[in-house]
Amino acid sequence: MPTSLVTGGAGFIGSHIVDQLLTIGHKVIVFDDLSGGRLENVSTDAKFVKGSILDHDLLSELFETHEIDYVYHLAAYAAEGLSHFIKRFNYQNNLTGSVNLINESVKHNIKCFVFTSSIAVYGNQTPPMSESMVPQPEDSYGIAKYAVELELKASKEMFGLDYVIWRPHNVYGERQHISDPYRNVIGIFMNQLLHGESLSIFGDGSQTRAFSYVGEIVPLIAESAMNQEVYGETFNIGSETEISVKALAKQVMKAMKLASHINYLEARNEVKHAYANHDKVKRYFGGLQETSLELGLQKMADWAKKSSHQPSKKFESLELTKNLPPFWK
Amino acid sequence: MPTSLVTGGAGFIGSHIVDQLLTIGHKVIVFDDLSGGRLENVSTDAKFVKGSILDHDLLSELFETHEIDYVYHLAAYAAEGLSHFIKRFNYQNNLTGSVNLINESVKHNIKCFVFTSSIAVYGNQTPPMSESMVPQPEDSYGIAKYAVELELKASKEMFGLDYVIWRPHNVYGERQHISDPYRNVIGIFMNQLLHGESLSIFGDGSQTRAFSYVGEIVPLIAESAMNQEVYGETFNIGSETEISVKALAKQVMKAMKLASHINYLEARNEVKHAYANHDKVKRYFGGLQETSLELGLQKMADWAKKSSHQPSKKFESLELTKNLPPFWK
Ligand SMILES: NC(=O)c1ccc[n+]([C@@H]2O[C@H](COP(=O)([O-])OP(=O)(O)OC[C@H]3O[C@@H](n4cnc5c(N)ncnc54)[C@H](O)[C@@H]3O)[C@@H](O)[C@H]2O)c1
Ligand SMILES: NC(=O)c1ccc[n+]([C@@H]2O[C@H](COP(=O)([O-])OP(=O)(O)OC[C@H]3O[C@@H](n4cnc5c(N)ncnc54)[C@H](O)[C@@H]3O)[C@@H](O)[C@H]2O)c1
Repeated sequence: MPTSLVTGGAGFIGSHIVDQLLTIGHKVIVFDDLSGGRLENVSTDAKFVKGSILDHDLLSELFETHEIDYVYHLAAYAAEGLSHFIKRFNYQNNLTGSVNLINESVKHNIKCFVFTSSIAVYGNQTPPMSESMVPQPEDSYGIAKYAVELELKASKEMFGLDYVIWRPHNVYGERQHISDPYRNVIGIFMNQLLHGESLSIFGDGSQTRAFSYVGEIVPLIAESAMNQEVYGETFNIGSETEISVKALAKQVMKAMKLASHINYLEARNEVKHAYANHDKVKRYFGGLQETSLELGLQKMADWAKKSSHQPSKKFESLELTKNLPPFWK
Repeated sequence: MPTSLVTGGAGFIGSHIVDQLLTIGHKVIVFDDLSGGRLENVSTDAKFVKGSILDHDLLSELFETHEIDYVYHLAAYAAEGLSHFIKRFNYQNNLTGSVNLINESVKHNIKCFVFTSSIAVYGNQTPPMSESMVPQPEDSYGIAKYAVELELKASKEMFGLDYVIWRPHNVYGERQHISDPYRNVIGIFMNQLLHGESLSIFGDGSQTRAFSYVGEIVPLIAESAMNQEVYGETFNIGSETEISVKALAKQVMKAMKLASHINYLEARNEVKHAYANHDKVKRYFGGLQETSLELGLQKMADWAKKSSHQPSKKFESLELTKNLPPFWK
């Protein structure tokens, strides 16, 4: 029975990875500081360790105590737009934390390190984003993710650490932290609807995204660690069906069976059309099992309406406030 | 009288920048933790503040107390080969430290942020390295430098922070920390000669580098902060004359008027031929004032022989020792 460590396993995507690994018979250790995740997301069949990936002594102890075969590294603070204003925190949490984990993975000769990077690494290049493009990230979140990708390549070269890099985009679904005001537009809309608020859109809502249902991407990410054929590879993953944020707002209202107004806010500095090419993942893994946005939203809406949610929290220690979108003040 | 902050100003290149800025009439503040630099490198006409760029409270105080116009950010631990083994330290010191400084520079609206990156950002692409290539760094040192470059671009876009990026390579000259065993082959050779040791070369010594005399690059780096025409630009800088490390060893012996044997060590994972194209810097700044390797080595050798040097120190807290070149053990 292989042992897998899932960092960020109390979070949205991570907790689904945990469930999937348990299903295929792994022993699973979840390591999460609960800064964004929730204990109730974690299956009772997994071992839970509360701690931060910044605590390298604790990590070290964890790797000493358990014979870890696979590392799934999902712990991160993933607020792309906000990352400009919390640069130090971003690099510490998302890069230094990852490096701590890479150090332990090298020391203990784990079999494969699976990393969830992001489509943010591509920056503002001409879409569709394809894995053959050299990344040119343009925000602190994307820069930190890309640095981890490069660090994994360097660690393969120098130490033989095997890895798989995933670049998901705009994932949504059950257990998403919908009360985080800084990210995940679908969650933000649902949260606003649950509170009887109007739906906030930056700019005119014509910016498009392709939203990916979590249940679609998780099996592939989970199985990749055991598939030597994909070691050293990087994959875009997610849906190909684009929708404008404005049209999305309508669909979310429909799924939630709640109506509201739209509150158009000043446009922020963000990529206008982010969409990705998924030929590579299809080539290696066969066709994705597509879940329609309608069905995915319905599942998430049903979950969102019956669940309790964490209170919405503003990020406490902004490092910069210059040019902060007024909505976040 | 403009005020310039020079981080790493007690170090090799930084202390020459300080002298140059004093010559052209700046008020100069040196900020350095003396981890690699020495107080005696710092002109008494500059104000010296001892501190680390990781201490963001101290940095914050510094920017509150002084009206800083220009920031020259040279503080870094610059051991490219060793960086694989001190990943966390590398990212903390060289990236998080830089981000602290960028944060303060944004907050206080400084006029220009001059950053010394490195040719290491190019990685193992086909030389000559030119600024039009998209960097693909392959070691932790180069990855951290590149992340700072990207962060500067993001901070210009989001906050209007002006910057100039320099990518020097293989700089040598007076005040180099010649007793650091991990970097700067010329310094290592001189130190070995002064101690009557044989000269150590990784591999067969056929790897080539182009060595750049410090006096050649410093005036351009210093003046760039005041030249709006180069804001937002990135420049390679350094010599174009390549020499093999083996031939270099002979030249250094000649300059030092000391002879010794060569000790060939196991090749390490390093770039074979690193050389750069300098058309861009010539186009913007006019021809460089070239100093021949012979003359530069002579000046450095004369200085090295008459100076006292810090004792040679091994890096104390290696994070990884797997595949560490035996020489460094
Ligand atoms: N959701 C998306 O659309 C998306 C897209 C691309 C990439 N990703 C990446 O996928 C991963 C998971 O994202 P998510 O959407 O599930 O977010 P999430 O916030 O739900 O999950 C992140 C988890 O990491 C934990 N965490 C954060 N910092 C930590 C630290 N220092 N130590 C230990 N645990 C820490 C949080 O408590 C949380 O449980 C992240 O790496 C994210 O960057 C997500
Ligand atoms: N020497 C080269 O060939 C070369 C080539 C390319 C780039 N660079 C870059 O130029 C810069 C200067 O390099 P150098 O060769 O003069 O090295 P150096 O070691 O002589 O100078 C670096 C200085 O930074 C200081 N420092 C290090 N960490 C610090 C911290 N956390 N807080 C405050 N001060 C700190 C050290 O005490 C030292 O005085 C570095 O950024 C280096 O990466 C050098």
